[in-house]
Amino acid sequence: MSEIDSADMGPWLSPEELEFVRHKVPMVYVDIVPVRLDEVGALEAVGMLLCVSGDKIVRTIPSGRVLFHEAIRDALVRHIDKDLGPMALPQLPSCLIPFTIGEYFPTPGQGWHDPRQHAVSLAFIVPMQGDCNPGSDSLEFTWFTPGDARTPELQAEMNQGHAMLLRQALAIMGEA
Amino acid sequence: MSEIDSADMGPWLSPEELEFVRHKVPMVYVDIVPVRLDEVGALEAVGMLLCVSGDKIVRTIPSGRVLFHEAIRDALVRHIDKDLGPMALPQLPSCLIPFTIGEYFPTPGQGWHDPRQHAVSLAFIVPMQGDCNPGSDSLEFTWFTPGDARTPELQAEMNQGHAMLLRQALAIMGEA
Amino acid sequence: MSEIDSADMGPWLSPEELEFVRHKVPMVYVDIVPVRLDEVGALEAVGMLLCVSGDKIVRTIPSGRVLFHEAIRDALVRHIDKDLGPMALPQLPSCLIPFTIGEYFPTPGQGWHDPRQHAVSLAFIVPMQGDCNPGSDSLEFTWFTPGDARTPELQAEMNQGHAMLLRQALAIMGEA
Amino acid sequence: MSEIDSADMGPWLSPEELEFVRHKVPMVYVDIVPVRLDEVGALEAVGMLLCVSGDKIVRTIPSGRVLFHEAIRDALVRHIDKDLGPMALPQLPSCLIPFTIGEYFPTPGQGWHDPRQHAVSLAFIVPMQGDCNPGSDSLEFTWFTPGDARTPELQAEMNQGHAMLLRQALAIMGEA
Repeated sequence: MSEIDSADMGPWLSPEELEFVRHKVPMVYVDIVPVRLDEVGALEAVGMLLCVSGDKIVRTIPSGRVLFHEAIRDALVRHIDKDLGPMALPQLPSCLIPFTIGEYFPTPGQGWHDPRQHAVSLAFIVPMQGDCNPGSDSLEFTWFTPGDARTPELQAEMNQGHAMLLRQALAIMGEA
Repeated sequence: MSEIDSADMGPWLSPEELEFVRHKVPMVYVDIVPVRLDEVGALEAVGMLLCVSGDKIVRTIPSGRVLFHEAIRDALVRHIDKDLGPMALPQLPSCLIPFTIGEYFPTPGQGWHDPRQHAVSLAFIVPMQGDCNPGSDSLEFTWFTPGDARTPELQAEMNQGHAMLLRQALAIMGEA
Repeated sequence: MSEIDSADMGPWLSPEELEFVRHKVPMVYVDIVPVRLDEVGALEAVGMLLCVSGDKIVRTIPSGRVLFHEAIRDALVRHIDKDLGPMALPQLPSCLIPFTIGEYFPTPGQGWHDPRQHAVSLAFIVPMQGDCNPGSDSLEFTWFTPGDARTPELQAEMNQGHAMLLRQALAIMGEA
Repeated sequence: MSEIDSADMGPWLSPEELEFVRHKVPMVYVDIVPVRLDEVGALEAVGMLLCVSGDKIVRTIPSGRVLFHEAIRDALVRHIDKDLGPMALPQLPSCLIPFTIGEYFPTPGQGWHDPRQHAVSLAFIVPMQGDCNPGSDSLEFTWFTPGDARTPELQAEMNQGHAMLLRQALAIMGEA
């Protein structure tokens, strides 16, 4: 989950409200693994964003909050649009069943760590048929082969939760 | 989602805090479909609770909030324990992937309706190996054959979301 | 499973060989539920073929054998191409996990019935982005709304296994 | 898939018939990943068999053919019983949806390799609540922690398909 997405919540919750709520209940998130498939549906590439978080460079995937009164499908479309641009042409899944549920906790040592909040994230693999262009929160968007996506170097550039999510997604697509 | 579970939140959020949060973000819930399986894993029966909600009798399933800093597996165990008693002996799933995601909205007409809140519910089928005894929120717990669970009479005794969840669970277990 | 697909096996197994094998081991099949999705991935329509089987008209879905040495993804593409034409533009799934396994037995009364054979069928929901045109085995291809697909009239035009598969697919896509 | 399971097919197909069929159509198999779960369903250990194959020692998992006219649930029970003994007390899944489909081809270089045949294998994670004792085909049965199961040493003792299956199963259970 990127550290940088709080700006897009401005219209919906004030920073004080968001801060309050984040310490009261788990926040609902979506995580999206962008993929490029070949003509028979086999995995060709996994897409990642390059962001600046504090003074560090991190690889990340489209991710963000589900807003009050927002349907999950609408949240998926909104975050893909924001992070990958309007020409990404995502194929949203026919069945709204996540391939995994991420659990992020504010306390280090329990599950995946997110210092800001307790988040429950629904993770989806989403094939992109168009061109992905990073939004204003990211420096670049890059496609990686499954082999490259699994290298320790790339994994080390991701936060712990996203690295795990990516390995799970690769495994489910037959690239364990 | 039962109307009666607010009592168990007392220690964690005051009624005012809960009311505030429920109008700011979607709430994370779990829904549990209790099942009885035969020796090869085929479905024998689906379990339901009988509750009083206002002046109506409703059939329901174990359901409730995931608390701040609570793991989903712990929430499942807590709600099963509360609603089905300590002798239910649930077999929690090895993979924490819900069979469906329920979306409940406070505004009638959009998805399933929950007047209290916007809730995102992770739904799991959980085989019970022991004896299920209703907690203090329920009048009785009853096992139904798949055929009985699908009758319009029983479906009419459930709220819209739970009736749908039950039909989806039956379909996934091969009883469409 | 259509009765009419034996012609396409000619190049691969002689009728005598096929007859022999069908009484020795379960046959591997794929069943495909063609769907049309809206821009957020929600189900708009389910597609069905109209075929003549003996002196009866039956509704069916693309279906057929996986050949010796044929990958499942290739079998999916081949059967979609044969039954829905080369302009169907199917979106094959990124994860090769069927939404259900159909078991067809030659003896009436055990599971679903297929008088020809014991078949184990991997069932997939496949969104179509192009135009579906029935192949030579079918009279027409029609899109049905989820509501129409569930009517007893349409269900009665399908064989027992396909009717069940369709109800399961609808349930998994949130249309139980 | 173990090389040693042909003995159990004797009553059903003669060696000549089996040999013939194996070169005509894909064979239906089941692969079973035995797991030990803790009280909230989280993975504690993965079980593996130690077998002799030719002059090599290999780690394997319960696996074998689905017979003509045999239901998949019955095949699962039969192979677990044969490979892990009658006291294993398996919890068969409520939903007969495999976590992955293994494709084994007789020609090296295409998918996973099985020199005997083209096999399509339905893979299931099955929690064992009792004591697993290896059948006559195996030397021993051992539980491994998820960490140990992922070591290159253990992975090297498995065939390519089973090593992949195990990594996929671990990923799906949150141990990628």
